[in-house]
Amino acid sequence: MAVNQGPLSGFRDMLAPQAIPRQQMLDVIKVVYENYGFTPLKTPALERYSTLSGKYGEEGDKLMYRFEDQGGREVALRYDLTVPLARVIAQYGSQIPLPYKRYAVGEVWRGERAQAGRFREFTQFDADTIGSKSPLADAEIVAVMSDSMAALGARSVIRVNNRRILDALAGKAGITDEKAVRAFMSSIDKVEKIGLGKALAEILKNFSQKATTLASGYLEVQGSSNDKLQSLVRLMGDSEAIAEGVENLSEVFKTLAAAGYSEEQVVFDQAIARGLDYYTGIIYETTLVGAESLGSVCGGGRYDNLVKALGGPDLPAVGTSIGVDRLFDGLQQLGKLQSVKTSTRVLIANFDSADSGEYLRIAAELRAAGIAAEIYYDPAKLGKQISFADKMAIPFVVLAGSTEKAKGLVAVRNMESGEQTLIPIAKLVATLQKMTS
Amino acid sequence: MAVNQGPLSGFRDMLAPQAIPRQQMLDVIKVVYENYGFTPLKTPALERYSTLSGKYGEEGDKLMYRFEDQGGREVALRYDLTVPLARVIAQYGSQIPLPYKRYAVGEVWRGERAQAGRFREFTQFDADTIGSKSPLADAEIVAVMSDSMAALGARSVIRVNNRRILDALAGKAGITDEKAVRAFMSSIDKVEKIGLGKALAEILKNFSQKATTLASGYLEVQGSSNDKLQSLVRLMGDSEAIAEGVENLSEVFKTLAAAGYSEEQVVFDQAIARGLDYYTGIIYETTLVGAESLGSVCGGGRYDNLVKALGGPDLPAVGTSIGVDRLFDGLQQLGKLQSVKTSTRVLIANFDSADSGEYLRIAAELRAAGIAAEIYYDPAKLGKQISFADKMAIPFVVLAGSTEKAKGLVAVRNMESGEQTLIPIAKLVATLQKMTS
Repeated sequence: MAVNQGPLSGFRDMLAPQAIPRQQMLDVIKVVYENYGFTPLKTPALERYSTLSGKYGEEGDKLMYRFEDQGGREVALRYDLTVPLARVIAQYGSQIPLPYKRYAVGEVWRGERAQAGRFREFTQFDADTIGSKSPLADAEIVAVMSDSMAALGARSVIRVNNRRILDALAGKAGITDEKAVRAFMSSIDKVEKIGLGKALAEILKNFSQKATTLASGYLEVQGSSNDKLQSLVRLMGDSEAIAEGVENLSEVFKTLAAAGYSEEQVVFDQAIARGLDYYTGIIYETTLVGAESLGSVCGGGRYDNLVKALGGPDLPAVGTSIGVDRLFDGLQQLGKLQSVKTSTRVLIANFDSADSGEYLRIAAELRAAGIAAEIYYDPAKLGKQISFADKMAIPFVVLAGSTEKAKGLVAVRNMESGEQTLIPIAKLVATLQKMTS
Repeated sequence: MAVNQGPLSGFRDMLAPQAIPRQQMLDVIKVVYENYGFTPLKTPALERYSTLSGKYGEEGDKLMYRFEDQGGREVALRYDLTVPLARVIAQYGSQIPLPYKRYAVGEVWRGERAQAGRFREFTQFDADTIGSKSPLADAEIVAVMSDSMAALGARSVIRVNNRRILDALAGKAGITDEKAVRAFMSSIDKVEKIGLGKALAEILKNFSQKATTLASGYLEVQGSSNDKLQSLVRLMGDSEAIAEGVENLSEVFKTLAAAGYSEEQVVFDQAIARGLDYYTGIIYETTLVGAESLGSVCGGGRYDNLVKALGGPDLPAVGTSIGVDRLFDGLQQLGKLQSVKTSTRVLIANFDSADSGEYLRIAAELRAAGIAAEIYYDPAKLGKQISFADKMAIPFVVLAGSTEKAKGLVAVRNMESGEQTLIPIAKLVATLQKMTS
């Protein structure tokens, strides 16, 4: 069977113009994560189906790529990076000093309905801290998100809330049934998308007038992060939930402020609810300034019960996940990524196959100096070779023709200006180092 | 279902002590590949089964992870990185300037019988040049392998042969049936593993006395690469095959010698045959000096008919594939990899939760200076915090206690010597930059 059909629907090939800036983006994030002390963890693409099933709700089980392998084992492709982390903690937990700060980057697979901008294979870049309940651990996850976006040259706004505050709101509204609480929070979460009026109308349709009035008061609280938190305490009165939520966020904001993060970077937003059921404390979402319409490019929260629920030890946890593909789109929109066709800085023209060794020697010298160089493999017409450099946007061409070589010289052509300079061959590396820096 | 069982048999988790040096190794190879002008290509983990089936022989079809997805499509997990490359060439070929030099790194999946050192998920790191028949392209693939190993601090020997020379040998021996040729080459290839005597006995069992005598003469040819090539021309007489093979290798060796590669690094070995059927010209394998028993850590060859056979345009190609896992084992054996538990260089001790902001501020300064720092999240007993730094092999602990802080000072503890130094807090970053460099 032929291969001349594209990739599977919902899957993508990435050639150099996408793959190069994407890799640069991942490298930047990796450095930030490592500067925070997160260490890499690599887990397999395939897991036992029994490890993944039932962890992502009904929809997750439906979207999961699941099959029987050659040995008759039920297996499934990784659906996220969190459950594999929990499996690792369950397995090696006692050997890992706590807190365990791990990062992971990798593809995950979900059989979503194919549509524009939605893929069945996409990449997550997670950082999680396992084994600490400290608000400082929460603050650091917020800081690592903010620093990652800053390192990528983007301004970001991280909107922060705490599930305990939402718990208090639901409690005060008399909503206790688990499914009802979820529906209520989902309506709160929609304010940004559908507006305050429609969100309140949805609440009124499903819940009491009292709940709606309370939600309205809750959502309309204004002011700085700390002012809003104090207003919510007054609005909701005394409860363990509100006390816990407000204490946590006050502490997080105080810590972040002391370390220099402003309200423009990190802000309390009582409308953030996050979809996943398992969050127990702080939650957050991140938008890029200038690319808000993309929605959140990274987010997460505290999930103190999940590791245990997944069969691991009883360990608190907090983490974030960068949606790599959406972030890439955002940075592209903002013009923060350079789309390049190649990393090559210098093309060495080929005049005569008999000089192959000389071309390779020149290339080796340039490469040893960190200047990416390639050789045109055939002694084609010079015009064809120059045109290749042009198509690939290679900025310099080295011309080591026999006339020049006899004089110990070599010509360097600047592809942008078209200018050609004759230089002693011994000075080639130094000259190109200057030119390409 | 609980998650407290390990990964699937034949699959691996890699925690920091493996994942950190492994990533460093991949980064080194990536820089070398990019310095040669290879550009990244990323293809999906899943392909249509029809794209992969029949491309890897009967065994490949059997070992492939194949299943029906939610939409009833026959799909399979990537088996190598070469067929996906051919699919991409078939699809985008006309838009890509030739020669197309691409690298790719990624997992591939094969349902091999689980056994020590053999995995069902492993990583390949390939470099291929599509669209040039030039011996210079061949020489460059050999050079990029040699340079990659050197950049990793390893001495390597690349043994090179050419399929046309083996074709000439088979022809001279009167072996023409395709299956017989394959069996003959397989016996030649076994010399290193089972010794010359046993390999020749195997040939005698399956082929004529004449073929055995010829193979014996072929395998016993001695001398430098060029001497051996000339001896083979004399041994095998005139044929298009021998002329092509010897001309190609002579050119490759001449080019590599002119660029400074010695016979100790790259050498002709007439016993190299390589398993895959699709090679048409130069072939090579690489062993690490001091870790020869591991076998070849990277190899490949020219495959001028494969892209077309796979449904793509008629384009010549030459490439190499690094077996990342085997190379990692080899570098570990040679002591070329540092197994580290974390990249963190500094732990900031926690004396008082009220100082969280100050700890985060100090951490932010260190991180901005490129010094990986983490904060102990809870004001635990100092002994516990120091013990954590010890367990994680973090070399320095910053102690910003209240007594010191009041004087504008901070203590830095060198974990190796146990020595503690008091320094002005304003000089912390500069001091640690010196200490950690």
